[in-house]
Amino acid sequence: MINVGIIGAGRIGQVHARSILSGVPDAKILAIADPYLTDQAAAWAGGVGIEGIYKDYRQILTDPRVEAVLICSSTDTHASISLEAIKAGKHVFCEKPVDQTLARIDEVAEALRSSPKKLKYQVGFNRRFDHNYRSLRQAVLAGKIGELQFVRISSRDPEPPPAGYVKASGGIFIDMMIHDLDMLRYLSGREVVEVYAQGAVLIDPAIGEAGDVDSATVSAVLDNGALALIDNSRQAVYGYDQRAEVFGSLGSAQNANDAPSTAVISTRDGVVGEKPLWFFLERYMAAYQAEIQSFFQCVAADSEPEADLEAGRVSIRLALACKKSLAEHRPVKIAEIE
Amino acid sequence: MINVGIIGAGRIGQVHARSILSGVPDAKILAIADPYLTDQAAAWAGGVGIEGIYKDYRQILTDPRVEAVLICSSTDTHASISLEAIKAGKHVFCEKPVDQTLARIDEVAEALRSSPKKLKYQVGFNRRFDHNYRSLRQAVLAGKIGELQFVRISSRDPEPPPAGYVKASGGIFIDMMIHDLDMLRYLSGREVVEVYAQGAVLIDPAIGEAGDVDSATVSAVLDNGALALIDNSRQAVYGYDQRAEVFGSLGSAQNANDAPSTAVISTRDGVVGEKPLWFFLERYMAAYQAEIQSFFQCVAADSEPEADLEAGRVSIRLALACKKSLAEHRPVKIAEIE
Amino acid sequence: MINVGIIGAGRIGQVHARSILSGVPDAKILAIADPYLTDQAAAWAGGVGIEGIYKDYRQILTDPRVEAVLICSSTDTHASISLEAIKAGKHVFCEKPVDQTLARIDEVAEALRSSPKKLKYQVGFNRRFDHNYRSLRQAVLAGKIGELQFVRISSRDPEPPPAGYVKASGGIFIDMMIHDLDMLRYLSGREVVEVYAQGAVLIDPAIGEAGDVDSATVSAVLDNGALALIDNSRQAVYGYDQRAEVFGSLGSAQNANDAPSTAVISTRDGVVGEKPLWFFLERYMAAYQAEIQSFFQCVAADSEPEADLEAGRVSIRLALACKKSLAEHRPVKIAEIE
Amino acid sequence: MINVGIIGAGRIGQVHARSILSGVPDAKILAIADPYLTDQAAAWAGGVGIEGIYKDYRQILTDPRVEAVLICSSTDTHASISLEAIKAGKHVFCEKPVDQTLARIDEVAEALRSSPKKLKYQVGFNRRFDHNYRSLRQAVLAGKIGELQFVRISSRDPEPPPAGYVKASGGIFIDMMIHDLDMLRYLSGREVVEVYAQGAVLIDPAIGEAGDVDSATVSAVLDNGALALIDNSRQAVYGYDQRAEVFGSLGSAQNANDAPSTAVISTRDGVVGEKPLWFFLERYMAAYQAEIQSFFQCVAADSEPEADLEAGRVSIRLALACKKSLAEHRPVKIAEIE
Repeated sequence: MINVGIIGAGRIGQVHARSILSGVPDAKILAIADPYLTDQAAAWAGGVGIEGIYKDYRQILTDPRVEAVLICSSTDTHASISLEAIKAGKHVFCEKPVDQTLARIDEVAEALRSSPKKLKYQVGFNRRFDHNYRSLRQAVLAGKIGELQFVRISSRDPEPPPAGYVKASGGIFIDMMIHDLDMLRYLSGREVVEVYAQGAVLIDPAIGEAGDVDSATVSAVLDNGALALIDNSRQAVYGYDQRAEVFGSLGSAQNANDAPSTAVISTRDGVVGEKPLWFFLERYMAAYQAEIQSFFQCVAADSEPEADLEAGRVSIRLALACKKSLAEHRPVKIAEIE
Repeated sequence: MINVGIIGAGRIGQVHARSILSGVPDAKILAIADPYLTDQAAAWAGGVGIEGIYKDYRQILTDPRVEAVLICSSTDTHASISLEAIKAGKHVFCEKPVDQTLARIDEVAEALRSSPKKLKYQVGFNRRFDHNYRSLRQAVLAGKIGELQFVRISSRDPEPPPAGYVKASGGIFIDMMIHDLDMLRYLSGREVVEVYAQGAVLIDPAIGEAGDVDSATVSAVLDNGALALIDNSRQAVYGYDQRAEVFGSLGSAQNANDAPSTAVISTRDGVVGEKPLWFFLERYMAAYQAEIQSFFQCVAADSEPEADLEAGRVSIRLALACKKSLAEHRPVKIAEIE
Repeated sequence: MINVGIIGAGRIGQVHARSILSGVPDAKILAIADPYLTDQAAAWAGGVGIEGIYKDYRQILTDPRVEAVLICSSTDTHASISLEAIKAGKHVFCEKPVDQTLARIDEVAEALRSSPKKLKYQVGFNRRFDHNYRSLRQAVLAGKIGELQFVRISSRDPEPPPAGYVKASGGIFIDMMIHDLDMLRYLSGREVVEVYAQGAVLIDPAIGEAGDVDSATVSAVLDNGALALIDNSRQAVYGYDQRAEVFGSLGSAQNANDAPSTAVISTRDGVVGEKPLWFFLERYMAAYQAEIQSFFQCVAADSEPEADLEAGRVSIRLALACKKSLAEHRPVKIAEIE
Repeated sequence: MINVGIIGAGRIGQVHARSILSGVPDAKILAIADPYLTDQAAAWAGGVGIEGIYKDYRQILTDPRVEAVLICSSTDTHASISLEAIKAGKHVFCEKPVDQTLARIDEVAEALRSSPKKLKYQVGFNRRFDHNYRSLRQAVLAGKIGELQFVRISSRDPEPPPAGYVKASGGIFIDMMIHDLDMLRYLSGREVVEVYAQGAVLIDPAIGEAGDVDSATVSAVLDNGALALIDNSRQAVYGYDQRAEVFGSLGSAQNANDAPSTAVISTRDGVVGEKPLWFFLERYMAAYQAEIQSFFQCVAADSEPEADLEAGRVSIRLALACKKSLAEHRPVKIAEIE
């Protein structure tokens, strides 16, 4: 039985808690901590048998029974809490991004390396555990598409975030495309060597005023010479649009969106299917559960998480390269970013 | 908080237990009973905090704290345990079929009517809670297909049951097509007035030797004059094939199978998608959870279950009519079956 | 070069003429005959270089240069013109049905048998030459579905015919389902041994007053024991709905409708694809061309047409069995119909 | 009746000839010219009633009865024959590209402008007449996707051309992506202002040795700020892959490939659909016919061709910008290319 503490009791913290309760029989949530814990969240936590309900996450870190923590607090606290948790000898599952800077991530990496205890560190790249993306990766790994030549990823949110959120988010490349940059590596099994980014404010002028773009494309080159294209939009009015394709010498594998049902209605007006699932928590619910299960399996079996700190670091490096490319209006080699 | 006991700790009993644990916060499983309880099942039950683990279901029925029971025992015990549970004043969720005879179901109905306490009784027609079938029903209810003129249902298992099972099952109409006959009523919102059944032994001769068929079709007439066609097969080698269509004056609504992912691989050999989900528990997992949630909502809100005892009774009556039609090689009016 | 005359210059006659002009370089249309030839049709025929434009088809039959005729006149003249054409030593392509009675078809068969010249006779079962149906047949022939166990055919017109047409048509089984009964044989490679038909007037009461039904289903048994289901509707408001499935021990093959384009539009309102092609001539244009090419290949190569007179005869026999089944409300063995 | 001469009797010249014969009743092919005319082609031309069969195209240009010419000769002769044809007062349909240089296209434009007779000039952008692309364009024009924000085009050949062909072709951007660059303008109704191209030799080293790439991507910016991504491959082993998507404030429209049939076969091995049509002439046969019909309609109605010389000019300008971008490894503004 692995005792775990959850730091941050917001939406995603509660999702992970529920995943543990229903799908990780070998883990027990000892405590949950949130400085802004709502009464509702506290009541829920009590109801499902979580004994420690704190405002200060340090109460979790100092509990010697706690072996692992899930860091689901606000993004700007990820690195510092990671450092404290590692110091306290806890395995860490941390929501992405670990930090918006490589320097801070390197501090975490150094802490991990110098920890006397061999700790696991997993970053919350949920899409790596999604059925539709895993199928593409398995097709690549099984050699079904042959030598990889091209990757295409479309990733579009159903609704733009408030401009206020955008400001603190680090911008579209760090906040949103980071998932796609990680997918590019995951699906291809390759490293990115160069990116060229384009961006535009086409949806909400307030996003532009906040210094960001709401639509972006990236053209990338991988280390085997393969090419890649990514497109992001902050608003696909028909739903959360999450698709990818891997193409190679033997063929192509692509996925499509998940919908609430397979029903199709044919009338005088057309043949109408359901829209893609709208809400990211609904779309990726099974993936969230699978990533948490995988984390505890790694802790239990002393094996390395697939979405490890290095994956988190590389994705930030790629996002920073995209940001620089857009700013300087030129292709940027990843090697330029340190 | 509704206290519940589960009678029968086999596969489906455990599925329902898990649904309650993860998805029905207002219900508490007090006890589980099974004469052949495995050590593994007992350990699991203890692990999830079920305090009472019995061989004799009567220990559940005599526990005054238990308000509701789930009857997941072998089919031939459904009616008698239902009668005892009603007598003990428990709400009942009973797996289908309640019984293979109308007479026994009528006894249960009479017990329900004469119970001093207003008890809920739900039959385990899980497909009524499945996203793909619900979408068709909603299309009908919303008037999107206009006046209903035709219903088509295909239902095919991935693998035939052992011939031994077939013998006790009551035959393909009572064991398998009962779901489709219930779906016919559910999707159409209509009553069936006549059926004509055909059957054949095309898959496993042992099924024929056991007195049953392994492939069957039904042509039906509904009370508004609409026509319907159903096909059943005990073996679709590509997976669990579950599809339906409702057709009317304004259009048609049809569903397709669920697959493990949306991935499609294009190679020199073709454009290959995934097979339908194979295992019924996997295919209908969300529906099993939803039907249990719905049962407890009905208990809590004192509202009537959609899949009530009458639905269970009518489906058996239709199945008996199909059986008679096949035996006598002629169309049979439902009114003939009493 | 095969010289051909076209008897009947209506819609389908012109379709066949165009097929010859653009796709049968080895055939030359010498003449076209129609008692009600419109000026427009005559002008068109002249424009494409057809030299003989007659009111009386006998002018075609007496022209010794003419080797083959296409009979596209009204249905009630098919058998008598067939007899005259055979007597005149012409190969015959005849639109379906050859006749509504077996006796008349037998006369044509007898004429063919006793003709001193070995003549080809092809019936206009266009669907046998359609890409979507051929693919299913090829799957069956290639053994991809294994032992055939089940066939399903849905065939629905976009609009009901006028009640006046219905009266002369011989009814839905002879006029419409005849195609599906032929498809059942074509797709399965099997003979039908028994049918059970249901029918209803759900679309246009005038069709009922004309003594016919506008919605029909058939449950059939094939000579290898396989089962089959067919549904027909005179009105699918979303377009011409033409689908089939063959199912067997190794799998299932099914087709879907053809649409004007593959475009799919996703908006707040849903994911909308195009409706099936509406007009039968547009839907089956390529099949009409292919059947005509095939006819001339048979004539040129002295090989037997696939859709021969016997196929025309059997389809009528099946349609008559369906008619009898509906009238007598019982399953009818095909052997009963002579 | 419009008299027409066809210059170049190769594959595409014969396709256009057949389109006229079967689908343009108001045009008559007076002559066909080809310096390397095969006996087979000559026999075919005679068989369909083309009276003039020449080696020298000037015999067509000097025939005063000829009103229009189709230039289907080798690419390097397009501009010079265009100039001669315009001088001779003929309407011109010219296969793409008109020339690989803007200067030569400008000469043709000047000749057109200064012609005393108002001549039509259409470039062979067949995809503008394809059902799948037209549907997307109509969705844009009808406002169904709202303000355009993003365009995606995938265009992949089934087999790479011989390296020898590549050398003379002008390279992938001028030979292959020109279609997609034209599609980008056609689908969006917008002008391109900047492109960034990437390319790689991933399929055939001989293509690299010939100085070209066989895989290419383009990231573009349109004049309304919208972004676009294009990918090209010389070899998609599963067939001719031709897809596009237009995305905007109200939704998205995308098309899929055409296949030989809609049949899908489900077995233990998967759910297998047909591969995309392989051969470009088969895939775009209807579009080739439609573009020729449209050309003659423009001549007859004195209306302007949609795919006019300016469209041909802009597509070359865009292709040259892509070529420059790849060579100089930087984004290139279209305004740089003159």
